[in-house]
Amino acid sequence: MKRILLRTSYDGTLFHGSALQPGKRTVELEINNAIKSLTGEDISVISASRTDTGVHARDFVSVFDSESPIPPDRFYKALNTRLPEDIRVWDSKEVSPSFHPRRVDSKKTYEYHISVGRTEDPLSRNHAFWTDYDLDISLMNLACSNIVGEHDFTSFCAAGSQSVSKVRTVYSAKVYEAEDGKDSLSYTGYVNKKYITVRVCGSGFLYNMVRIIAGTLIEVGRGKIAPHALKDIIDGRDRSLAGPTAPPHGLLLYSYDMI
Amino acid sequence: MKRILLRTSYDGTLFHGSALQPGKRTVELEINNAIKSLTGEDISVISASRTDTGVHARDFVSVFDSESPIPPDRFYKALNTRLPEDIRVWDSKEVSPSFHPRRVDSKKTYEYHISVGRTEDPLSRNHAFWTDYDLDISLMNLACSNIVGEHDFTSFCAAGSQSVSKVRTVYSAKVYEAEDGKDSLSYTGYVNKKYITVRVCGSGFLYNMVRIIAGTLIEVGRGKIAPHALKDIIDGRDRSLAGPTAPPHGLLLYSYDMI
Repeated sequence: MKRILLRTSYDGTLFHGSALQPGKRTVELEINNAIKSLTGEDISVISASRTDTGVHARDFVSVFDSESPIPPDRFYKALNTRLPEDIRVWDSKEVSPSFHPRRVDSKKTYEYHISVGRTEDPLSRNHAFWTDYDLDISLMNLACSNIVGEHDFTSFCAAGSQSVSKVRTVYSAKVYEAEDGKDSLSYTGYVNKKYITVRVCGSGFLYNMVRIIAGTLIEVGRGKIAPHALKDIIDGRDRSLAGPTAPPHGLLLYSYDMI
Repeated sequence: MKRILLRTSYDGTLFHGSALQPGKRTVELEINNAIKSLTGEDISVISASRTDTGVHARDFVSVFDSESPIPPDRFYKALNTRLPEDIRVWDSKEVSPSFHPRRVDSKKTYEYHISVGRTEDPLSRNHAFWTDYDLDISLMNLACSNIVGEHDFTSFCAAGSQSVSKVRTVYSAKVYEAEDGKDSLSYTGYVNKKYITVRVCGSGFLYNMVRIIAGTLIEVGRGKIAPHALKDIIDGRDRSLAGPTAPPHGLLLYSYDMI
């Protein structure tokens, strides 16, 4: 028996999120089915994270136990031939039988993607949130500096969260901007004026926390919330003080590091 | 009667190319239908370019004549409410009644997008060609320097082209690379090792010319064609000398400038 760790990337557009749900197409269902097809084993993978409908991942970590003689570092290739094109396993390796991805200290990084322009860009419509408000990223970065650190993030947690403690540590939060223009290089063909990436790295995140941070930063970028107000929003420990929850399709689970 | 110019962006994945074809979903069909719905006029737009099935555009230029009282610079907004989400008009303006987009001197820029990694990236699967060969972009850029200039591009023209002269001028050709890593900023979430953009700018292009250039540059990047061989490939005026035609989904009509 070996415990195998998988690192998966997926386009969340056509998934009902990552976690198993009866009768729904989810990321874990597809991974379980691919393992069943490959090894014949009935397995439910255990994953480090949980993403909502429409959210994407670049580094989704799961583990499972297998009796298969396939070398652990070859699993990813064999699974990919059994997976649909919107999901790919890009790494597999053996880990200790006691390893549990939700019981280790880890550093998770999320990105929230925003396209700014007077019309939506069809090429990024499923992977970036579009707004026609011009956003001031220097204001957004000022606001970010108030998010970094250990805080009670009740104001950035959706109702229905089962987390007892709302204290989390944000290691870094930063907003990046790529201007689109005839002379600048565009990797993606956006016609939009700006393509903005919010990158947040932390020990862990509450339910919808990154989307509420993104929604609040968008309000800051529009000039509707002052950057220094983030301090009061956190201190108030009240969800209604923060901005709206930004839509899921702009969110990307970027990386997961064990520390 | 006013002649109106539209600039359109589209995700080519679900289009049978840009040009009208009986019974097929094409970009021009959608634009014509949106104009009909808006103004009641039966119109066939005249476009500056023609893209194949699966090819994307950031700046597709079309013109049409209308009796509509809608101000020309407001057309784009009204059309967008009548267009499906994979196509957006992002600019509209009045041009001279004698303006014809294929009868003016223009500078067209295409990009060819390549993702390099050991597995395909689900998030870019429709917008970049994936290869697991590591490509050497310094070799590719050396090859590019042989493409720039006025040449007979017969070797880079698909059979079936109706162009009499195969002479075209390439103003610039360059290969850009973005490394993906935990520490570098990724706009798109690619897990791949590299994301490569080939950007070619010219007076006009023969049928499949950019895709054959891209396919040949990929062979150069793999070390199968030497950069200096591009000179002989051009001089030979024989399609069989160049590399394969790279697949359509990596191609993006990036910009169109009247000069």
